[in-house]
Amino acid sequence: MNNFDFKNPTKIIFGKDTIQQLENEIPKDAKVLLLYGGGSIKKNGIYDQVKTALAKVDVMEFGGIPANPEYATLMNALKVIKEEKITYLLAVGGGSVIDGTKFLSAAALFEGDTPWDILTNNIRTEKGMPFGTVLTLPATGSEMNSGAVITRAETKEKLAMGGPGLFPKFSILDPQVIKSIPTRQLANGITDAFSHVLEQYMTYPIDALLQDRFAESILQTLIEVAPKVLKDPTDYKAAANFMWSCTMALNGLIQKGVPTDWSVHAIGHELTALFGIDHARTLAIIAPSHYKFNFDDKKAKLAQYAERVWNIKEGSVDNKANAAIEKTEAFFNELGIDTKLSDYTKGYEGTAEKISQRFTERGWLGLGEHKTLSPDKVEKIVKMAY
Amino acid sequence: MNNFDFKNPTKIIFGKDTIQQLENEIPKDAKVLLLYGGGSIKKNGIYDQVKTALAKVDVMEFGGIPANPEYATLMNALKVIKEEKITYLLAVGGGSVIDGTKFLSAAALFEGDTPWDILTNNIRTEKGMPFGTVLTLPATGSEMNSGAVITRAETKEKLAMGGPGLFPKFSILDPQVIKSIPTRQLANGITDAFSHVLEQYMTYPIDALLQDRFAESILQTLIEVAPKVLKDPTDYKAAANFMWSCTMALNGLIQKGVPTDWSVHAIGHELTALFGIDHARTLAIIAPSHYKFNFDDKKAKLAQYAERVWNIKEGSVDNKANAAIEKTEAFFNELGIDTKLSDYTKGYEGTAEKISQRFTERGWLGLGEHKTLSPDKVEKIVKMAY
Repeated sequence: MNNFDFKNPTKIIFGKDTIQQLENEIPKDAKVLLLYGGGSIKKNGIYDQVKTALAKVDVMEFGGIPANPEYATLMNALKVIKEEKITYLLAVGGGSVIDGTKFLSAAALFEGDTPWDILTNNIRTEKGMPFGTVLTLPATGSEMNSGAVITRAETKEKLAMGGPGLFPKFSILDPQVIKSIPTRQLANGITDAFSHVLEQYMTYPIDALLQDRFAESILQTLIEVAPKVLKDPTDYKAAANFMWSCTMALNGLIQKGVPTDWSVHAIGHELTALFGIDHARTLAIIAPSHYKFNFDDKKAKLAQYAERVWNIKEGSVDNKANAAIEKTEAFFNELGIDTKLSDYTKGYEGTAEKISQRFTERGWLGLGEHKTLSPDKVEKIVKMAY
Repeated sequence: MNNFDFKNPTKIIFGKDTIQQLENEIPKDAKVLLLYGGGSIKKNGIYDQVKTALAKVDVMEFGGIPANPEYATLMNALKVIKEEKITYLLAVGGGSVIDGTKFLSAAALFEGDTPWDILTNNIRTEKGMPFGTVLTLPATGSEMNSGAVITRAETKEKLAMGGPGLFPKFSILDPQVIKSIPTRQLANGITDAFSHVLEQYMTYPIDALLQDRFAESILQTLIEVAPKVLKDPTDYKAAANFMWSCTMALNGLIQKGVPTDWSVHAIGHELTALFGIDHARTLAIIAPSHYKFNFDDKKAKLAQYAERVWNIKEGSVDNKANAAIEKTEAFFNELGIDTKLSDYTKGYEGTAEKISQRFTERGWLGLGEHKTLSPDKVEKIVKMAY
């Protein structure tokens, strides 16, 4: 096991009818900017619940934060924050709204030239404007971590940021929100959380026995509840387990003391930036090819995953590892998620070369748990995923 | 799954040679009281490592905190804190030293008549004097939670306290400390952590799928590493997994959203108060009888535990549940832990009645996950454990 530091100060408020507890979490004298996305919260009743809970607080609003939160839109929100002397941010939405709010939390107190520098220069945010979240879409885990990914349309870039100042003060998780989420988004959420676990688990054994078992626990739980959630999003029991699994998948715990990969995300982000493919689906496209290409590096862990998560006890390490990749791809397919780039777009020729070139230009010369996944290897993986 | 709140702000610093990081965690201008136990830290080198790391800080010392931290001793430490205007506490020890430090953290800022009221009147500590810990004995989980248990010799009482103000600011966990711990204490630590998980898990199914799997993960890991730790405490891999499992067993995570029991602890505390039996051993004495006595309430979960943790797949629910109790008792025995009160003391007659009477006097009329374990039932359980 590697040495590690772990600290996660976010307060989670989990369960039925918990949105009303907002009232106790936001300081009475705060000037709040409520941030949200395309407006679904006005149709499903969440907006009304939030406004009722905040009746005694000074609240302004900024809606329209898109999926893959867009820099230009966020800069408009930043203007509001500065002009209106906002002191507290409240994200009501999924990962995109929460990530956008994290960018604003950092940008509001940033003293450099332009907030884009936070992303391009990898500036860690030690202190941000305080913010809380009401999660409306389980998937990214952003509600209990300190990372964010921001997109800039004009340059077709999608970059990550973070720092200890970007943990939400609180996050409210009411599994009842799931009943109004479209099936497509639920499938994305399951795939996203599942992929988050794989990025932190599918590397090589390092005798981190408990972390491995926790990772396997989340995978097993997602596999168990996925068909129930998709069949009946009003099934509270399934929804609650789905929601808590998504949070635990990326709140830092399972990556402590172990090597992590994150190549699938790095490559997947490019597919979103280039083609607008849903984030989770880009992960499902890349992961199987990635595991096949790096088979020798990952087969010990793939075989462990086969045994413990998919109950494949027979055969050699290679057999089990291959079966695990097939099971994973089949799981995504059963959720209605296609796993080839050609399923999503025409005109994908040249994509592999383009991504490889971008990684070279950014100096991303060795990704993955061994820091050896070079741009030429990335090119081959993407081609395998066509 | 039940609704829950979860917040745990303690920073964990885990791994080899991490004690030197103390330097970065304690404010330079703090006036520190270093608290420790019987002095083993002076023999095993931990004291020297701590003093070296704190070379630039103003540090006073208070040693001699006994196992089952004793109120009278702690009141002497409180006098030092007040007279010397201490601003920061540092516990270097196991659960007893850390629990004692938590009491002092609360007592230092307590404004009531006598600090004993914190224990007898169940006063939650919202704000305590800041403190950190260097863990020298994995067992209680006190290094990452906000609870403590304090003993008062003159009244033979052992009572619990806690509150959000009593999370350590940081805890340093270097698994290398394990190599100098006596076998008896290692066996106690494994038993203690194992019992902590059981108290939060061995109730009834409530569709908290992930919490159940996390609990089972900790139990499986303790079972896997226990023989290795006992055989060779210098085995760093085993030590690291043992240490992290103990912390995760009682840092709040696995109890969120589920019913918990804690009857075994309530009864076990009395055996320590009456006979001075090691805390962990009292749990091993009571648990098997408790599960047998409450068999119908617990058999569904006992059978799940049998299947998933002990790999007992055949037989009826009753068969599996019974086998799980036997396996648990055998596991304790293999650690060298006896599981009957008569193994520890003569003159145990009347103990069951005495404990039952104490619970009645304290108004503890319904313990356990159903709040139905009345003093007369407690009496029967203790008799079964003779």
